[in-house]
Amino acid sequence: MKVGVVGLGLIGGSAAKAFKAAGHSVYGYDINSTITGYAHLDGTVDGELQPDEYSGCDILLLTATPNAVMGYLHENAHYIPKTTLVMDFCGTKKKVCELGFSLAEKFGFTFVGAHPMAGLQYSGYKYSKATLFSGASMILVPPIHDDIMLLDKVKCMLQPLGFKKYVVTTADFHDRMIAYTSQMCHVVSNAFIKSPSAQYHRGYSAGSFRDFTRVSRLNESMWTELFMENRKNLLSELDLLIKSLNEYRDAIDCGDTETLCSLLRDGRIAKEQTES
Amino acid sequence: MKVGVVGLGLIGGSAAKAFKAAGHSVYGYDINSTITGYAHLDGTVDGELQPDEYSGCDILLLTATPNAVMGYLHENAHYIPKTTLVMDFCGTKKKVCELGFSLAEKFGFTFVGAHPMAGLQYSGYKYSKATLFSGASMILVPPIHDDIMLLDKVKCMLQPLGFKKYVVTTADFHDRMIAYTSQMCHVVSNAFIKSPSAQYHRGYSAGSFRDFTRVSRLNESMWTELFMENRKNLLSELDLLIKSLNEYRDAIDCGDTETLCSLLRDGRIAKEQTES
Repeated sequence: MKVGVVGLGLIGGSAAKAFKAAGHSVYGYDINSTITGYAHLDGTVDGELQPDEYSGCDILLLTATPNAVMGYLHENAHYIPKTTLVMDFCGTKKKVCELGFSLAEKFGFTFVGAHPMAGLQYSGYKYSKATLFSGASMILVPPIHDDIMLLDKVKCMLQPLGFKKYVVTTADFHDRMIAYTSQMCHVVSNAFIKSPSAQYHRGYSAGSFRDFTRVSRLNESMWTELFMENRKNLLSELDLLIKSLNEYRDAIDCGDTETLCSLLRDGRIAKEQTES
Repeated sequence: MKVGVVGLGLIGGSAAKAFKAAGHSVYGYDINSTITGYAHLDGTVDGELQPDEYSGCDILLLTATPNAVMGYLHENAHYIPKTTLVMDFCGTKKKVCELGFSLAEKFGFTFVGAHPMAGLQYSGYKYSKATLFSGASMILVPPIHDDIMLLDKVKCMLQPLGFKKYVVTTADFHDRMIAYTSQMCHVVSNAFIKSPSAQYHRGYSAGSFRDFTRVSRLNESMWTELFMENRKNLLSELDLLIKSLNEYRDAIDCGDTETLCSLLRDGRIAKEQTES
């Protein structure tokens, strides 16, 4: 199989390494040509992916931020062969899928939106690894929800990445869920670490603090773009959490143990329900 | 060494198991006599700890909630031999240390407040294990800050628990730090899991969600007591976080990418500073 990867960061680099480890031919492109050169040198890619390398490309992965992916698609869509499966791996899906589907229809290739549920608190090619996606869930946003043949083809082609589970959904539902399960964790963790107390945590912290602050170290440019693209969903989750925190706050302020205990019990039960 | 453990929950059970594994003689007490019976049956304790068993007790660990520990001290302090080292393992230190120090002075035993930085999202004897404290940090609140002989004795006696690091501080500083590093993580995680989106997380969540919601499952009675005892410190951290979240909220609402990016950058830098 011939694989093209655009964007050799943590995600793209990991995908390129996984496809290469499975014996496929991999061509890569990064806006920073030093990275592409390095990936060539370490054997991850067979060469730089330029539009004249699209020929015979079975799958083209676009693994950059939504704006970068959309810019790339605008510039290069007309070079993409009709036989190529194009997938973006962006963290938000609405805008990029709308563009991908419309350009696919115009130029004849196939476009499927995707979001692998894997990542690290670090970004960049140097942290990429062939096993990053191993065991993770993969969210797919296909142009037609129940196109079984296409979904089967996608699953087959992505096999080297080792996903454990595939979820098929719409861009809207994806963005609504991701605002909560991923974006909110990043915002809240990032706000949490700003307390002046954080600087004295050594010796006074354990697992809950370590887990809670892991993703506060984030790539601010990438996340600003992702948050802004998903403003409506993220705002509604943020407002919900702030309202909820104020309920605990008021119960504690008033010394209302009964209300506080009942708020904590509701949370414990909600957690148990997510696990059942 | 003869060890007494009052409260055979996750913490007390784990301490009892660690002392027993190191070959010491262990006597335990729990308000639920079935637990004590079970701990006797599984070989963790040599018998039930009643005041008439205090004789020859080298160390007496009080591992229940602050109110339960204070109640126990009020009732039993006059039975405690002068040679016994008494330690509480409560999650807040101010009230319990004040009482412990004053009763120690009155009856002649030694009291040291302690808070092991180890735990689980589960509570109860059935989750206890001899290795719970292994590699964790231990916070000590001694009656006199620089009593080297006493600190050395404590460290020596607690050796079977396997702490990696000891921190010596005051009850005030402990409670201020713990409001942030532990209590806040529990409150925020518990509020976070209440979003209706949580029930659909499967397939849409990965490490950040798992880490963020781990401690939302909590023992609401115990935490209500701990939060209420530490109201002032917890409120000040909660207000700080709510204020900070509102800054992100407003930047997102206004589409102010520059402010959002700068807020995220500040958080990233704060995180890096906690690690340096």
